[in-house]
Amino acid sequence: MEITTMPSSQKVVVIAALAAAVGVLIGGLIGHFGTSTGPPLTEAQEEYLRTMDLMIADQWEQGLDTDNKFILESIDRQKMKEDLRILTEKPHLAATPRDVFLAKMIRDRWTEAGLDTVQMVPYTLLLSRPNVSNPNLVTWEDGSGATVFKSQYKEKVIREDDYDENFVHAFNAYTPAGDAMSEKGYGVVYVNYARVEDFDKLEELGVNVTGTVVIARYGKIFRGNKVQHAQERGAKGIIIYSDPQDVALEGEGPEEVYPNTFWLPGTGIQRGGTYLGDGDPLTPGWPSTDEAYRLKEEEADLATIPTQPIGYEDARIIMEKLGGMAPPEGWVGGMEGIKYNLGPAFLPEFIDFTLKLSTHNYLLQLPNYNVIGTIKGAVEPDRYVLIGNHRDAWGYGASDPSSGTTQILETASVFGKLMKKGWRPRRTIVFCSWGAEEYGLIGSTEWVEEHVAKLQERAVMYVNTDTCASGPMFTSSASPFLWDAIIKVTSMVPGVRGGATIYDEWKDSYLKLKKDAKEPVPKTLGSGSDYAAFNVYAGIPSIDYWFRRDKVKYNISTYAYYHTGYETFYMVSENVDKEFKIHQGCGRVASLTLKYFADSLVLPYSLQRYPEVMAKAIKGLKKKQVDQLNEIYPNFPKLGEAIANFSSSVDTFTANLKNTIMMDPLKARSINDQMMMLERIFIIPGGLPGRITARHAVFAPSQFDGYASSAFPGLADLMYKIDDLQGQELEERKNALRRHISDLTIIVQQAANYLKDFEFI
Amino acid sequence: MEITTMPSSQKVVVIAALAAAVGVLIGGLIGHFGTSTGPPLTEAQEEYLRTMDLMIADQWEQGLDTDNKFILESIDRQKMKEDLRILTEKPHLAATPRDVFLAKMIRDRWTEAGLDTVQMVPYTLLLSRPNVSNPNLVTWEDGSGATVFKSQYKEKVIREDDYDENFVHAFNAYTPAGDAMSEKGYGVVYVNYARVEDFDKLEELGVNVTGTVVIARYGKIFRGNKVQHAQERGAKGIIIYSDPQDVALEGEGPEEVYPNTFWLPGTGIQRGGTYLGDGDPLTPGWPSTDEAYRLKEEEADLATIPTQPIGYEDARIIMEKLGGMAPPEGWVGGMEGIKYNLGPAFLPEFIDFTLKLSTHNYLLQLPNYNVIGTIKGAVEPDRYVLIGNHRDAWGYGASDPSSGTTQILETASVFGKLMKKGWRPRRTIVFCSWGAEEYGLIGSTEWVEEHVAKLQERAVMYVNTDTCASGPMFTSSASPFLWDAIIKVTSMVPGVRGGATIYDEWKDSYLKLKKDAKEPVPKTLGSGSDYAAFNVYAGIPSIDYWFRRDKVKYNISTYAYYHTGYETFYMVSENVDKEFKIHQGCGRVASLTLKYFADSLVLPYSLQRYPEVMAKAIKGLKKKQVDQLNEIYPNFPKLGEAIANFSSSVDTFTANLKNTIMMDPLKARSINDQMMMLERIFIIPGGLPGRITARHAVFAPSQFDGYASSAFPGLADLMYKIDDLQGQELEERKNALRRHISDLTIIVQQAANYLKDFEFI
Repeated sequence: MEITTMPSSQKVVVIAALAAAVGVLIGGLIGHFGTSTGPPLTEAQEEYLRTMDLMIADQWEQGLDTDNKFILESIDRQKMKEDLRILTEKPHLAATPRDVFLAKMIRDRWTEAGLDTVQMVPYTLLLSRPNVSNPNLVTWEDGSGATVFKSQYKEKVIREDDYDENFVHAFNAYTPAGDAMSEKGYGVVYVNYARVEDFDKLEELGVNVTGTVVIARYGKIFRGNKVQHAQERGAKGIIIYSDPQDVALEGEGPEEVYPNTFWLPGTGIQRGGTYLGDGDPLTPGWPSTDEAYRLKEEEADLATIPTQPIGYEDARIIMEKLGGMAPPEGWVGGMEGIKYNLGPAFLPEFIDFTLKLSTHNYLLQLPNYNVIGTIKGAVEPDRYVLIGNHRDAWGYGASDPSSGTTQILETASVFGKLMKKGWRPRRTIVFCSWGAEEYGLIGSTEWVEEHVAKLQERAVMYVNTDTCASGPMFTSSASPFLWDAIIKVTSMVPGVRGGATIYDEWKDSYLKLKKDAKEPVPKTLGSGSDYAAFNVYAGIPSIDYWFRRDKVKYNISTYAYYHTGYETFYMVSENVDKEFKIHQGCGRVASLTLKYFADSLVLPYSLQRYPEVMAKAIKGLKKKQVDQLNEIYPNFPKLGEAIANFSSSVDTFTANLKNTIMMDPLKARSINDQMMMLERIFIIPGGLPGRITARHAVFAPSQFDGYASSAFPGLADLMYKIDDLQGQELEERKNALRRHISDLTIIVQQAANYLKDFEFI
Repeated sequence: MEITTMPSSQKVVVIAALAAAVGVLIGGLIGHFGTSTGPPLTEAQEEYLRTMDLMIADQWEQGLDTDNKFILESIDRQKMKEDLRILTEKPHLAATPRDVFLAKMIRDRWTEAGLDTVQMVPYTLLLSRPNVSNPNLVTWEDGSGATVFKSQYKEKVIREDDYDENFVHAFNAYTPAGDAMSEKGYGVVYVNYARVEDFDKLEELGVNVTGTVVIARYGKIFRGNKVQHAQERGAKGIIIYSDPQDVALEGEGPEEVYPNTFWLPGTGIQRGGTYLGDGDPLTPGWPSTDEAYRLKEEEADLATIPTQPIGYEDARIIMEKLGGMAPPEGWVGGMEGIKYNLGPAFLPEFIDFTLKLSTHNYLLQLPNYNVIGTIKGAVEPDRYVLIGNHRDAWGYGASDPSSGTTQILETASVFGKLMKKGWRPRRTIVFCSWGAEEYGLIGSTEWVEEHVAKLQERAVMYVNTDTCASGPMFTSSASPFLWDAIIKVTSMVPGVRGGATIYDEWKDSYLKLKKDAKEPVPKTLGSGSDYAAFNVYAGIPSIDYWFRRDKVKYNISTYAYYHTGYETFYMVSENVDKEFKIHQGCGRVASLTLKYFADSLVLPYSLQRYPEVMAKAIKGLKKKQVDQLNEIYPNFPKLGEAIANFSSSVDTFTANLKNTIMMDPLKARSINDQMMMLERIFIIPGGLPGRITARHAVFAPSQFDGYASSAFPGLADLMYKIDDLQGQELEERKNALRRHISDLTIIVQQAANYLKDFEFI
């Protein structure tokens, strides 16, 4: 819309239409003046009128039939396929030359697209690498001391194209170099998924893991928590493998796995980080700028026991030798012919064998880039709608993260085209390509830590995609404030597997999983991708979405080829998204979501969802827990009352909003500010009890699984095993609980008060 | 200004005038339309135009010749005198019936004045009282065990009118009940002002205070720090007295003291709190709402040694018995005939005497009221300009706080009158009467803690007055962002002692004190009154001002009758402000300051003052300190660079602002938000190293004197006696320093970046 060149008689129509659209009553006024017969407008008057037009425009409503249609049509899946090919041409581990090459490529692409600023921003970070010339190994020695088995430290090359001499050896980042050896014939324990409940079960069964090497399977929880749990229980090393039950559900034969299906061959090895904090381990809670203080490497809170991932081909060689008790129900995985004994004793035929885990990882500090691009908002340049995706991968990263990277490239490109047609967003749009996510969400965390004041004051919302395409089923995690928006946007985007819209497809798959649900809704946010710094640290409403495997058919934690050498362009383009319709869906959802929040006059938050989810979380507590909480802190019911107050405050606010027929620009700004800042209130400045970067009082990752979201995480943490405590320790825990419930109540009450513009009660 | 009733032809004039005044170019536009000959405006159109008028109006500039004149003329000193009489009629210790009576009176007065909301808000607080039937005593026993001296626990009644049966006994709040006894002939030490350097001096001289009762004089530092220092050095009790050198500079005779002068008679005793934190000691860092968790009383961080204040009449009886070394230079006070020996030994004639300090204070929890009134802003109701003054006193409180209370009553009254003339402020004005300031800034701290989210997002500035009139000399402490505003406002108010303006009087007295200064500027903020929660905890630009004694003539810490039984209406109305011109000056400065920030289109912060003061603080470090800091943390110079960046960022921002000819309402709001939030950035969420409520990284109270302001307080604290440390302790201190310098640099750099509206570098 180029108002400058429009004769003023036409203006009447535009303004009247837009006034009708946003429900304000001013069009007529400017129309009245606009049709007068006074002298022609001066340039400054024109400029002022244009400014006023823009200030009261709801560009989202205006552009529904034009801009949005243009966006949907312009997202080009052939281009996205070509982009994915380039992005996955070589492995691009964080801070390697290829990673820097891609950062520059993204910078150049965004510049070409016409973004107003594009910058490559480096932070020097602590990273971790395996030793190229001395690979990490698991070995068996027989009674004579001869090595009878050596584990593989790379995938077997099945397709010649998949070979790259720089492909990173299998390792778990930030785990130390070291040896962990069993005794002869004794000292290896199978610990299932290495969850707290798995170790508890072993204790119950009388299997002691202290001093042993444990072997766990991947899945269910973040691998870093597996290492943590093994370490806490006294294991001296941990081997983590991918079990066929989780990665090869239709058989281990060549026809049943890659390259013929999306299932994982026996030599596929999942790499990955283990750091339990977020961001650079040397700067926990502050940004890794050049001048910043850094902990010494030995002060960083990293794993202390040797850890190594392996494939199921090698895991079989270990598991087949374990004796001891038979496994509990549910612990038997999918390796054919394996009994999954618990150990720690070996079977009689291996009674003089010794297992040895040797790792040679090292720490290093390297500069690592974020790429940040902006489109300056025309009316409210100081309000930011952000989108981010990380760039680094454990190998080719075809799904994680490059499927998501194609989407931010395409979104920027399409917005560039729209700008050439005269559009400019009301608010600033910020594009982010994050570095070193795989090591611990580092690029995004450092950036948020550096710019936290600005972001907390000005960020409207953050859209995250990581792996966008690993299957056909849409799913999402989001702040409740964004739930309705994602429902609305997915309702506007054509389906990727034959449905009319993505919403329809989502609803279909969601209701199959949750029989009693009436509508699909996102999950709440845990951690595991770059939204953590935005939401859990800074309280900025965030959304993450992706297309995943069919969870009704395959109830597994993640896609089979995740973080392995088989996560290739071939895998994705042949076995996951042959027509690139899923990628296209990603790009369309991203673009419309950004535009919805960048262009709407009144920000489209779904306020009432928040108290609803909170109330549900309280309602979801077991009666025993409620009784216990009431006994420990008789004011516990006040938390429920505060939530009810918050809910009715939202009702009043929303009703007032609906009854506002006069929406001047300052009123809109004020209303938007009140809504935008609401989630910030849930941030506890000093962090949750005992945690620095987890500051969100309402939703944060569980302390025992970094991937999972926990409602009122501080409560869950403080209630954890409280029945096992006694004396002084119990009293301290109770006091911490009292204090935390009190904090929660005060915070929720603040949220209720926050929606009032000038009263204090 | 009642635009609704104005014919639209007149509007042109108003708008054009105001457009000219604020430098925007829009008046012509609306004028152009306004003079057209179309159909008459509908009601909605009228309303919209009125809204637009208001949104771009700079009501401050508009009202310079009308509203401001009205305010200056309306502040009524006779009314203020009458108010002071009522406020000081009876003692009004926090949470006593008289305090509640006054809270209700203020509520009613504000309601009558026409404020939009007025609320009495209670918090139940931990308070402390002396035992009425068993007064605290210092006694001397002679060798036979006979009591030969008992200290006075109340002032002698010199004027019959001053008597009140409920007048509170002399005590120091939050000090425990207990006994501290000397040995026979030994064990009392004179410690001058009980500063760190005083105790260091004693140590140097070989005078050991461990196990002794110390006697200190009031002045120089906060009494709570005196108790803290005595306690840390192992004293078992502390007596604090008012020395004639500080309170009776012209003689102790009846003609030289009250009621004939403002000097203190020998039985005047300074009461006061000793808590080193801010707010309710049972809820450090969170609000004392009903549902809030509270520490147990024994967990509160309170003084642990008996403490008692006395007058110089009684102090003489103690000091005359001390033997030991002669005092160092500067330690000799003004009691005639006293040698000020250090002790701990008594003079030979008192060798079998014993000194005993017995206190009987107790803790109690009581509801205590703040009174909060608002005038809702017409254009930006969600932006707050606040003024506060506490209500509680240690007795009649004629200067502290009631002189300030008359001012908030009169200011509200005059704004009420102005509203009846059609005025309504652009932004919301909030009036606060704080409870329990004397006990530890409690009312204001709890309120800020409860509403911190709202206040940090929306508060433009806070005006504090406590003691407004205790002498004729204007002085001020303020956030540097407010320095130019106070200069401007005082330049508009007639002088109180014959000068043309208060500014002239201020300049005159200021330049006499600081020979090399060119202009008077406020000091930076420490603590000691209710601005602490606003500025030091929440980062809201704050100002405190008062009229004090002539510091050139009398170089004393505070006014002589401070917190004593002689702080009466008679004292103030006869010896301090006979014509109530000082009170009038207070009211005028308060009203204009509020209106300046409530009505200006662009908030009148003085941005460049901040980096200037910071740079000066760094420049003020001694060479030895700089060398040491550079050695400990080679990146220390980056802090100076960040300050320079901040300064040039301010320059750019200010230049852009001056060049902005088009000021639409959203642009103004955005610019204002950027400025308003700047000081918030200096808040370290977790507090300064080791401190909870002192969160301001740039200016906060010194750790060794709660009254004094310290620039970069964390640096000062961490450098403190670092040369005395060794080994592990030294290394930890160095790491804390490194981390803190790093934090400071990051924060100042954030401030520099914050003034950019959409870029991140």
